[in-house]
Amino acid sequence: MPRHSVVISWITEGFDNVNWRAKMHSVREVLEAKSVAVIGASRDPLKPGAQLLNILKKVGFGGRVAGVNPQGGEVFEMPLYRTLEEVPFPVDLAVLHIPPAAVPAALEQCSRKGVKGVVISAEGFAEPGDRGAKYQEEVRAILQSTGMRGFGPNTLGLVNTATGLTTSYYASSRMMKPGSIGFVAQSGIFVGALLRYLSSLEGLQISKGIGLGNKVDVDECEALTYLMEDEQTRIIGMYLEDVRDGRRFLETARKATARKPVLLMKGGRTPEGARATVSHTASLAVEDALFDGAIRQAGVVRVLSIDEFIRTLKGFLFSPLPRGGRLALVTYSGAQAIMSIDTAVEQGLQVARLSDLTREKISRVISTPSKSKNPVDLFPDMLAHGFEKTAVEILGALLEDDGVDGIIFISFAIFGAEPYRPVVEFLRGHCHKPVFFSLLGTPKDMELANTFLEENRFPCYEFPEMGVRVLARMRKYALLQEERRI
Amino acid sequence: MPRHSVVISWITEGFDNVNWRAKMHSVREVLEAKSVAVIGASRDPLKPGAQLLNILKKVGFGGRVAGVNPQGGEVFEMPLYRTLEEVPFPVDLAVLHIPPAAVPAALEQCSRKGVKGVVISAEGFAEPGDRGAKYQEEVRAILQSTGMRGFGPNTLGLVNTATGLTTSYYASSRMMKPGSIGFVAQSGIFVGALLRYLSSLEGLQISKGIGLGNKVDVDECEALTYLMEDEQTRIIGMYLEDVRDGRRFLETARKATARKPVLLMKGGRTPEGARATVSHTASLAVEDALFDGAIRQAGVVRVLSIDEFIRTLKGFLFSPLPRGGRLALVTYSGAQAIMSIDTAVEQGLQVARLSDLTREKISRVISTPSKSKNPVDLFPDMLAHGFEKTAVEILGALLEDDGVDGIIFISFAIFGAEPYRPVVEFLRGHCHKPVFFSLLGTPKDMELANTFLEENRFPCYEFPEMGVRVLARMRKYALLQEERRI
Repeated sequence: MPRHSVVISWITEGFDNVNWRAKMHSVREVLEAKSVAVIGASRDPLKPGAQLLNILKKVGFGGRVAGVNPQGGEVFEMPLYRTLEEVPFPVDLAVLHIPPAAVPAALEQCSRKGVKGVVISAEGFAEPGDRGAKYQEEVRAILQSTGMRGFGPNTLGLVNTATGLTTSYYASSRMMKPGSIGFVAQSGIFVGALLRYLSSLEGLQISKGIGLGNKVDVDECEALTYLMEDEQTRIIGMYLEDVRDGRRFLETARKATARKPVLLMKGGRTPEGARATVSHTASLAVEDALFDGAIRQAGVVRVLSIDEFIRTLKGFLFSPLPRGGRLALVTYSGAQAIMSIDTAVEQGLQVARLSDLTREKISRVISTPSKSKNPVDLFPDMLAHGFEKTAVEILGALLEDDGVDGIIFISFAIFGAEPYRPVVEFLRGHCHKPVFFSLLGTPKDMELANTFLEENRFPCYEFPEMGVRVLARMRKYALLQEERRI
Repeated sequence: MPRHSVVISWITEGFDNVNWRAKMHSVREVLEAKSVAVIGASRDPLKPGAQLLNILKKVGFGGRVAGVNPQGGEVFEMPLYRTLEEVPFPVDLAVLHIPPAAVPAALEQCSRKGVKGVVISAEGFAEPGDRGAKYQEEVRAILQSTGMRGFGPNTLGLVNTATGLTTSYYASSRMMKPGSIGFVAQSGIFVGALLRYLSSLEGLQISKGIGLGNKVDVDECEALTYLMEDEQTRIIGMYLEDVRDGRRFLETARKATARKPVLLMKGGRTPEGARATVSHTASLAVEDALFDGAIRQAGVVRVLSIDEFIRTLKGFLFSPLPRGGRLALVTYSGAQAIMSIDTAVEQGLQVARLSDLTREKISRVISTPSKSKNPVDLFPDMLAHGFEKTAVEILGALLEDDGVDGIIFISFAIFGAEPYRPVVEFLRGHCHKPVFFSLLGTPKDMELANTFLEENRFPCYEFPEMGVRVLARMRKYALLQEERRI
């Protein structure tokens, strides 16, 4: 018998497949847990298990929380129960802060207690070698036979900002502010660090966070399906190191992208990177070019780095989708507009040709004919009419021009947010197209202006080419949606 | 007679070529001007010409300054002279804030006064049409016959932070802090905006700034030659929209890159972008692929956007060049390390293989064998030994390993600069390889940590892939230098 079928028969042995499916808890049930037990909660308040008990209290998780430690005792003024059985209330979710060898026995305890899902935080399963892999298979078999759902091992686990649930000892109240980004990561600590960073940015709060770790049970497909159906989630971000079942993933992705944008970063694009993923989350290498083509066809937006990911999130979350690829630029600097046009054309966008009416309207504030074309050059005419009037007149004309699908506004940040108040006031009522800003100035002025604009949901990019790239991605996504509708 | 030779004979007519070369002033003489006259200085203190008089006083220009206005009067408590002749001291540099049609007569005045160079700030020469082009040819002929050097038209002109000279009304004292970046831009206002922005960043002050505008006389080759020879300048940045004499530019670039790095951004990479450069600085289109190959062979570092330009500047200015392409990573996050390895390999770097001795040293602080390889994973061992000790031991081992040419250190920014003080203290004595940092945290913590590290000349990048790209560029530059030496 080949090794493959041995594994299959071993996994399916001993339970009826149909019954098993019927009993299996859903990812949603686990994410919506009303009670959490931390197994392996130390009496030492500095250890992760103890920290998590404290954090759940601090971030205002509405459900019940218990710590389990065979020695009993207490931490953060909470009693530690000697066994899970002793916990005096039903437990939906158990977080396991124990070594790999102790996990199987703990899972049996969880099953008896009626636990719906577990987060296995420990490392040392499949990453370093054969013994770990054996534990991991054992865990998989127990989960499947009991119907409990497992996240990890090697993960900080779950976040649900709607209920205040977190299984990460690396969380803060700010991180738990409800937002609309659903994030899945096949990683350990990265998901925590990135969510913490995102939560500090204007308007980029998350809805749900799911750390997959080594994916002993719940995988990218189930996580994606859950987020696709989750109403709090408006956009999905993923970091993956491998995809175990390519066909299933593409089918799921196709369904998900029809409902909301899915942005994907993948580690292991190169053979060297892929080799590193093996010791990180025991991933299987995939040929990147094949993978890339397939996911793009499924409507997934591929991003290559975290900064690109964040910039793209902003565009999709703050702005309507562009109805075409024709870009108009308003600028104080010919050079910056030209570099933006280069990027736009390289990324598949076009330079909008302004209508005669639009040029006529613009010429009320821009006297030089060569500057009232696209790119519209504010300088030096804005000195005569004032920045606010010039900007509002031009933006108004461009928004009304059916030949313009998106606008990049390139200007100075000199007086902080002030010059942009009347501009935002005007745009608020009129803006049915993406309008991105890119303002150059001192860090302080840029922060003031950008914060104001982004509070009003106008994305700002340090340099305009960054905004152009985002607009190009949004256009590709919109185009795919249009093609699907036909 | 073809149009081309008509123009040539018209330009060379009327003066002896050899004599003309002998009389011609150098770019250096103009940049080191000891006195400046602003022709067209308004009595209205808000107008650019008047502003410039005020700014030269404020930024502490050591030379003499005069304003010229046919109506006389005064502005900012300075008398305005009715003609340049009336200025009671010799004038090295004249800045012309007058319309195109008035420029030729002003140039004749300048020549009589013994002026060495002029900055022609006005737009409206070659950009919008034939009449402007005629003025521009007239200006060119006068400059060549008199030996005065001309910058512009359509430029903010010159900055020399060593002497406090600026011809830009868009300057500030902070912008004039002496640094070592020489910057040349074929643009109008962009050079001013970018220099202002650079001056706000840690360690990125400039030495000289040269705005070429429409290049009626001084062009990219002469500017590059000047900066190559200028001792204050350690690195050269260029923004160009065209190169008028390809062969001459490549020869000049080859000489310059042998002495210091030259980073180049070019507007008009695409046909659409190139079309826009015509109305911006009346540029001629060049096939970008040809141009790109040629300049890279000449050792020029091509950068595609302003943010890339700034990140690359930091790497070259703060760090030694890597002696090979073998990269080591220290990380808290497997995911971030893997994405960095992907980028490194895509950019031509290799993943360093650590020596047995290095791994042994690292294993003193990192207990898991799979984590003491490259990428070295700090987490969770750093919790046991403390961040500072762990970081210093690992960095020490990597710096001593001859198989490592550059290091990317990926970590958290949680406690601001504090955790990095002992690390920098240690590195200060030991660092003969590039060590770049990438720290993730709240914006405030990141700013504290990054500012501290960059004050100590360790480049910080928001995300590690950015640092990897810079290291790859530095390696390519170093390799070319090594090949030239053979």
